[in-house]
Amino acid sequence: MSNDRTASTRGSLFVVSAPSGAGKTTLCRRIIDIFPNLRHSVSFTTRSMRPGEREGVDYFFVDPEVFAQMIAAGSFAEWAEVHGNRYGTAIDTLEQWRNCGHDVLLDIDIQGANQLRKSYGQSEAVFIFILPPDLTELRRRLEGRGTDAPEVIERRISNARGEIQASTDYDYIVINDDFEMALTQLKSIIVAEGCRSSRVLPALATGFDINI
Amino acid sequence: MSNDRTASTRGSLFVVSAPSGAGKTTLCRRIIDIFPNLRHSVSFTTRSMRPGEREGVDYFFVDPEVFAQMIAAGSFAEWAEVHGNRYGTAIDTLEQWRNCGHDVLLDIDIQGANQLRKSYGQSEAVFIFILPPDLTELRRRLEGRGTDAPEVIERRISNARGEIQASTDYDYIVINDDFEMALTQLKSIIVAEGCRSSRVLPALATGFDINI
Repeated sequence: MSNDRTASTRGSLFVVSAPSGAGKTTLCRRIIDIFPNLRHSVSFTTRSMRPGEREGVDYFFVDPEVFAQMIAAGSFAEWAEVHGNRYGTAIDTLEQWRNCGHDVLLDIDIQGANQLRKSYGQSEAVFIFILPPDLTELRRRLEGRGTDAPEVIERRISNARGEIQASTDYDYIVINDDFEMALTQLKSIIVAEGCRSSRVLPALATGFDINI
Repeated sequence: MSNDRTASTRGSLFVVSAPSGAGKTTLCRRIIDIFPNLRHSVSFTTRSMRPGEREGVDYFFVDPEVFAQMIAAGSFAEWAEVHGNRYGTAIDTLEQWRNCGHDVLLDIDIQGANQLRKSYGQSEAVFIFILPPDLTELRRRLEGRGTDAPEVIERRISNARGEIQASTDYDYIVINDDFEMALTQLKSIIVAEGCRSSRVLPALATGFDINI
C-alpha cells in the first residue's frame, strides 16, 4: 500500500494527539515506515539533547534566545511550553515537505493542534486523536509502565478525561485496543484522505480533457 | 479487517457512482464480501426480471403502477428513469439497515446521488466516485468488452467526460487503474469513515465517564 500522489500535489498535514498511555508514539513510528511519502515533522526544542538523540532527527535543539526570536518572527505553526522547556513546529519545516509533495505527520499535544487548526483549513490538515479503549485500560497501561508514582498516574488519568472531552474537535478517533486494528485504522485514514476529491481531481484534468 | 462499530450506532450510507467501464460493479461486490457490517442496497425497478436475477437480491421487481404509487407516497430516497425503466431506492430499505447498525452501500448514478445528497447530511452519507485512469483506458475497456457498437462507445466516452466533471460533488475519488489498489482505497474510505469522531465519540462516553 502506498500513497501514490504525484509530486506536483502539495502534501497534507496529519496531526496526531493522544493522552499519555494511548500508544501514540509506537503507532506513529509504524505508520512512518509504511508510507514512503509521509515524513515525521521534526520540532524545535529548548531542552537539552538526551543520550541517543540526534540533531535534526529527534529535534532541532536551539538556545532559548533563538527560540524566542523564532516566536517573535512568527516562524512557528505551533509552539508550547512543557515543564519549563519549549517545543515548536516551524512553518518552514512543514511547507518545505508539502511543497515537495510529501505528507507530514505531526505528533503534538492538544494545545499545539488547536493552534494548527487556526492556521490550516480542512483541506490541508487532518486531525486524529488516539485513545485507549477506556479509563480502566489506561490505568492498567500507566501502572504497567512502572515509571510513574501513583499520584502522577492519577493526574494523568484526570488529564486524560479532559483531553478526551477535547477530542470532539478532531476529525477522527482511533481506539488503540488491538494494536494491529488501530494501525489499520490509522493507515486507512491516511489512504482515504489521499482519495479526497479536492486532492485527486486537479491531477486528473489532463487525462480526462476537462476543466476542474 | 472489519467494521467493529456497535449495533447501537446508526449505520452510514456509502454512495458509489462511476462512468460505465470504470469497474464499479466488481469493486462493489468485493467490498460487500470484505465488510460483514456492510449491506448492499436493493433497489426497486419496473424492468423485467432477467434470467439468473432474484427478487429481493438483485432488485425488488414491481409494476409501473406500484412504482408510481411509491413515488406519490414519498417512499423513495432517490429514483430515476433509464431507457424507459424506473429504478429507485426506498427510504425504508436504507433506514431498516441503518437502524440495525449496518452501513449500506448504494450503487447508483449521478442523478440518484444528487437526490440523496439533498436528503442526507455529511455525517450520514459518504459519496465516492470511481474512475478509470484516463479516457484512453476507458475507451480500451469499453472496446475490450466487445458488446457496444462504435457509436455507443463514443456516446459513453462523451457521457463520461460530463460525469467526471460532476465528480467534484463527491467526497472521494477512487482511480481504478490497478484493481487491488482501488480496492484498498475503497476499503480505507469505509474504515476511515467508521473512525470519524462524530461516529466514535458517542459510544465512548460511558467508558471515559464524560459527557459528549
